[in-house]
Amino acid sequence: MAKKTNNVTPWDIQGEIDYQDLAQRFGTRLLSEDILERMEKHAGREHFMLRRGIFYSHRDVDEVLDHYDAGGQFALYTGRGPSGPVHLGHLVPWVFTKHLQDIYGCKLVFQFTDDEKMLIREDYDAEITSHWVYENALDLMALGFDPDKTEFIVDMKHTAKLFSIALKVAKRITWSTMRAVFGFNEDSNLGIIFFPTMQIAPCFIESERSGEPVPCLIPAGIDQDPYWRLTRDVATKLGYPKPAQIHGRMLPGLTGNAKMSSSMPETAIFTSDVPELVEKKIQDMPTPENRVDCLAYLLHYFLLTESDEEVNELHHECTVNQRSCQECKMELVEKVNKFLLAHQRRRKLIGKSVKRMLE
Amino acid sequence: MAKKTNNVTPWDIQGEIDYQDLAQRFGTRLLSEDILERMEKHAGREHFMLRRGIFYSHRDVDEVLDHYDAGGQFALYTGRGPSGPVHLGHLVPWVFTKHLQDIYGCKLVFQFTDDEKMLIREDYDAEITSHWVYENALDLMALGFDPDKTEFIVDMKHTAKLFSIALKVAKRITWSTMRAVFGFNEDSNLGIIFFPTMQIAPCFIESERSGEPVPCLIPAGIDQDPYWRLTRDVATKLGYPKPAQIHGRMLPGLTGNAKMSSSMPETAIFTSDVPELVEKKIQDMPTPENRVDCLAYLLHYFLLTESDEEVNELHHECTVNQRSCQECKMELVEKVNKFLLAHQRRRKLIGKSVKRMLE
Repeated sequence: MAKKTNNVTPWDIQGEIDYQDLAQRFGTRLLSEDILERMEKHAGREHFMLRRGIFYSHRDVDEVLDHYDAGGQFALYTGRGPSGPVHLGHLVPWVFTKHLQDIYGCKLVFQFTDDEKMLIREDYDAEITSHWVYENALDLMALGFDPDKTEFIVDMKHTAKLFSIALKVAKRITWSTMRAVFGFNEDSNLGIIFFPTMQIAPCFIESERSGEPVPCLIPAGIDQDPYWRLTRDVATKLGYPKPAQIHGRMLPGLTGNAKMSSSMPETAIFTSDVPELVEKKIQDMPTPENRVDCLAYLLHYFLLTESDEEVNELHHECTVNQRSCQECKMELVEKVNKFLLAHQRRRKLIGKSVKRMLE
Repeated sequence: MAKKTNNVTPWDIQGEIDYQDLAQRFGTRLLSEDILERMEKHAGREHFMLRRGIFYSHRDVDEVLDHYDAGGQFALYTGRGPSGPVHLGHLVPWVFTKHLQDIYGCKLVFQFTDDEKMLIREDYDAEITSHWVYENALDLMALGFDPDKTEFIVDMKHTAKLFSIALKVAKRITWSTMRAVFGFNEDSNLGIIFFPTMQIAPCFIESERSGEPVPCLIPAGIDQDPYWRLTRDVATKLGYPKPAQIHGRMLPGLTGNAKMSSSMPETAIFTSDVPELVEKKIQDMPTPENRVDCLAYLLHYFLLTESDEEVNELHHECTVNQRSCQECKMELVEKVNKFLLAHQRRRKLIGKSVKRMLE
């Protein structure tokens, strides 16, 4: 049985996660049949991450779809803290975000929160930042996002784009709210206390620029939800549309923890991993008592295998036919390496374009 | 007798001020004979604001002078919240700062804290900001600062120059320190909590740019001291030189309050006031019981009359010869209007240059 955690803030995820419980505690809604049908109709197909409940919860997605159906445009917003290499867990929401950009033809604002990483980590400086920003941006764009409809905002580089909006936001949030939402205390540093306003600001950037309300949809892990609950309160006070969210589950880590984590390399397969390392990491994966929680299976389920038929067969082979873990792992190694090889090839072709996008 | 106040923070000055007591409470040192002599030697003359104790207190000015005598350079840093027109009280420290730039040939970093004003005032927006920034910059430069050695930093416009330094600063300050130094509480907005780091950042900008320690000297009213005490702690943690300060007294308001204030126009003579308005304001000034506290006298003493002989004569005329207030006020009206006319003429000549400086 998955253990429940009562301790999910953006800076502290541990233990296995009960996602139904999270949605209930955060007060979000599960994606309804109606929403899933509408999105399928827009896309011409049902995305496997929706069908499988990998993206499963939301706020106001129905309103965004209404706006779209009425001929309006909306913006996508997501981002990443550029603290290290990208792993397969990062790709899950990005693959889904790319799907949304494809269907709805909308702009993606992608934020690199280099400021947050610098504020949390002692060993972090501008050189490390710009290295990871570039590397991570390659990983994003290698998934096929439209460069003309994708804008990078690197907090410490493109500060001017955000700061005036961040200050408007900051003006409407008190210390007591910050403390309640993020669990800050007497010893919290002032930078990390201010940081959430920089993560909130991009929700409003398209409205600010166009001078009219542009709804914003945030596809991201549900662990980031505290930001958006706060953002929705502030939006009302500032006259911006409340940002909508579509929440994903997080790909668990290789060693059985709640999610893959860059800061624990043994839990993750990185996009830059060479085939031998991938093989070693997969061979070292523990076999869980409950075969359904097996990460080999979850890697197929979350990312590698779109076909339900194939996924079901994998499941059947394991649970009914008792296929050996070794056999299953060899198949997974091959599939991951094929995926990574193609990804690494695409990364190599887009260096110039990504550099331009980061200027 | 002047009433003492125990309540001097940068956002809250009220009542008359016991400056000796302030220096003692803030733990600053009074300018010594030795320092005054050294500055006189550098300048070739003794500045009337030093002689009269208008600038009277300091931290580490002796060290800055040592550095200068050893052939080193330092930077001046001061600034203003661009919330309205400049009055004669604002000019007092600027006149002294100009003197320092003349003597030491050093760069002045002048900050416009438009962000702070926006965070404090409900009615403040970008249009009002840029109006007052330009108007105030004209007032500063009309005093004769060297445009090639003066840099304006408008927080919300030139954010990129400050933000990365502000974040380094913010990383080294905890909430409990902010609360203790600035009196923040549960209801303080997050923007104003973060703001001090933006005011601290320019202390380090020349060191950051040159990659070596460049001492910074801040000529300003002693009411800003809480910022600099905090800054000095942080400087040590970040490996920058501690900024030095030279503290001034503030020109009291026309109606007898602690200082002229833009937010109480009846207390101030603005640089844009027409002669008739100046006359009315001076005529309306109350006559204090204690003639030495008379603002007519203090205007001469702080700003208008450099010659001690003339100031002593004014004092003698009033206290010994019992000259009528009416006569004294007429003389003051003439002197203020002559001062303002020349100032307004210089303002008109420098519009283009100031616009370029603000780009």
